[in-house]
Amino acid sequence: MGERMEKKTGWEANVRAVTPYTPGEQPKGQDIIKLNTNECPYPPSPKVGRVLEGFDAGTLRLYPDPAAQELVDALAAYHHVDQEQVFVGVGSDDVLALAFLTFFNGTKPVLFPDVTYSFYAVWANLYRIPYFCPALDDNFHLNQKDYMAENGGIIFPNPNAPTGILEDLDTVEAIVAANPDSVVIVDEAYVDFGGVSALSLVETYDNLLVVQTFSKSRAMAGMRIGYAIGSKKLIACLSAVKFSFNSYTMSRLAIACGKACVEDDVYFRETVGRIVGTRERMKRELAQLGFTFPDSKANFIFAKHAHVEAGRIFGDLRSAGIYVRYFCGPRVDKYLRITVGTEEQADRLLAFLREYLG
Amino acid sequence: MGERMEKKTGWEANVRAVTPYTPGEQPKGQDIIKLNTNECPYPPSPKVGRVLEGFDAGTLRLYPDPAAQELVDALAAYHHVDQEQVFVGVGSDDVLALAFLTFFNGTKPVLFPDVTYSFYAVWANLYRIPYFCPALDDNFHLNQKDYMAENGGIIFPNPNAPTGILEDLDTVEAIVAANPDSVVIVDEAYVDFGGVSALSLVETYDNLLVVQTFSKSRAMAGMRIGYAIGSKKLIACLSAVKFSFNSYTMSRLAIACGKACVEDDVYFRETVGRIVGTRERMKRELAQLGFTFPDSKANFIFAKHAHVEAGRIFGDLRSAGIYVRYFCGPRVDKYLRITVGTEEQADRLLAFLREYLG
Repeated sequence: MGERMEKKTGWEANVRAVTPYTPGEQPKGQDIIKLNTNECPYPPSPKVGRVLEGFDAGTLRLYPDPAAQELVDALAAYHHVDQEQVFVGVGSDDVLALAFLTFFNGTKPVLFPDVTYSFYAVWANLYRIPYFCPALDDNFHLNQKDYMAENGGIIFPNPNAPTGILEDLDTVEAIVAANPDSVVIVDEAYVDFGGVSALSLVETYDNLLVVQTFSKSRAMAGMRIGYAIGSKKLIACLSAVKFSFNSYTMSRLAIACGKACVEDDVYFRETVGRIVGTRERMKRELAQLGFTFPDSKANFIFAKHAHVEAGRIFGDLRSAGIYVRYFCGPRVDKYLRITVGTEEQADRLLAFLREYLG
Repeated sequence: MGERMEKKTGWEANVRAVTPYTPGEQPKGQDIIKLNTNECPYPPSPKVGRVLEGFDAGTLRLYPDPAAQELVDALAAYHHVDQEQVFVGVGSDDVLALAFLTFFNGTKPVLFPDVTYSFYAVWANLYRIPYFCPALDDNFHLNQKDYMAENGGIIFPNPNAPTGILEDLDTVEAIVAANPDSVVIVDEAYVDFGGVSALSLVETYDNLLVVQTFSKSRAMAGMRIGYAIGSKKLIACLSAVKFSFNSYTMSRLAIACGKACVEDDVYFRETVGRIVGTRERMKRELAQLGFTFPDSKANFIFAKHAHVEAGRIFGDLRSAGIYVRYFCGPRVDKYLRITVGTEEQADRLLAFLREYLG
């Protein structure tokens, strides 16, 4: 049965029709275990708190630096690239939305995997960009040759979401190298948890854009900071479109707190190390409970149970105050995406599942 | 002579070509008098500072509420509208950029004045929206009948920028009423300094979107908060496009500080009152110095001198550390746009001009 198309009249005839992305729930209760949106279970660097304490609220009367130069410089120094190779935005979603608008402007289809971050299709639809989604193989890996076809651009996350699977750098390089006429975006939201970044390739390939975020490994989802690194030419194109959209996207607080966060590398490595430790423990214990999952290199585990339906476990976890993510749709609806939390959160999740499945 | 069009090859062939908006300078010196970007010369409400001091940085690890409900509710209460009639964004530029994308989606030209906020043409070009700019009359007022022609949408600021001229509510209502098949956006960035808001019309006209900002009268340019109020139907359309672009645009700090700011109405009225007082004094003294200007209802004065060229005054003020705004282009290049500062800033500006023109 097709959808009933309502004929719009008046001003509604000129409204852009979209089907928005649905973010994970943000429940407000106190005793909830929130393992549904891949946030960091630990607070951001204490240096961020110190920036807030010492911040002169009077300066908020002035516009921020439209170039967010202090934050850009901190990221350039951290990643050993030129500041003209860095672009910052209001979370990596903002960066990616602008990248779609900037780079995927041809008539050939943009390519991304069938099982991936579901916002890609939403942006393509928003801007009416044609796209095609090659199927991942049975192990949720991408077939390199699918990305050798004619295209108007390529994007994939690495590690992929919601599977957590990492493609090796050779695969990424082969795809970038085979597509000099397309911008290839590697969305590295989860790379810090065990991935190998494609940043080492940006000096060689001027068509490669690497996107990272402060929302996961840097524990700043609430501050909204994401960034892209690429060739100076790519970044100049992205900046021109950004300055055609909104001159001032990064608040004075985002710039100051983001800089402090990047500069505390010791804390960052420690936090990531703890999360990776908990992830590996969760893998072992989930396997003992009858779950199978791809070998995640991200801060979540994409798991299905041998006997119990994912949708049922999802609902029962939720009733117990434990929120995980469940996606409808072919191939993914057999799985739960479980964010790696603190050791204590893992204890409670696993205790519930032991009882529930026992 | 036409522009030389460079033929782009490789991935550059698919890049969106734009000519970005140029924001006013953000000079970094200490002793500069900054009257070039219409910021508030006074700090935001002390309650904003208290929010920052008391803010738990640990909560930044979590995504913000995607609906920014606390801020939306505060604005709804302040303006006596339903919360479903309020939309918030990263400054009013973000709100306007999304409104162009959402509502100006037809094939007929969008209408806005020839002398107005220059970002309108930038957004239209970004999204390839056809547009037409009816000329303001010799006194920089708009001709109501220009907006009775067939169109795909209408937008104008009221008071207008960079002129500061206010159109009366009857004119605004006549335009909104004559265009039931178009969305009419009234950009009220400067309305708090003596304008009459069109908010009283949103209950009657479901095609009217009123946009306001925290960047001017609320002294929060550095925090990036803007908002739109309209019919529930309009706001639902705008929200759908926003959720197709970026789920989380408002940081936890923007939501908390924005709410505190709206709730301190006493401070707000006091601050606006001081700025209006200084503006009226500046008008009197600028007139004595040989300047003429439309009767501004905004926090800036659009002034030209009887004998000395605007471009020359601009350069000489700048050399003296006093930044005002100068726009190139027909009709406006005879004028300076001077932001209303503190009494002390007005003293120094006027002292310089007295000496300079004397």
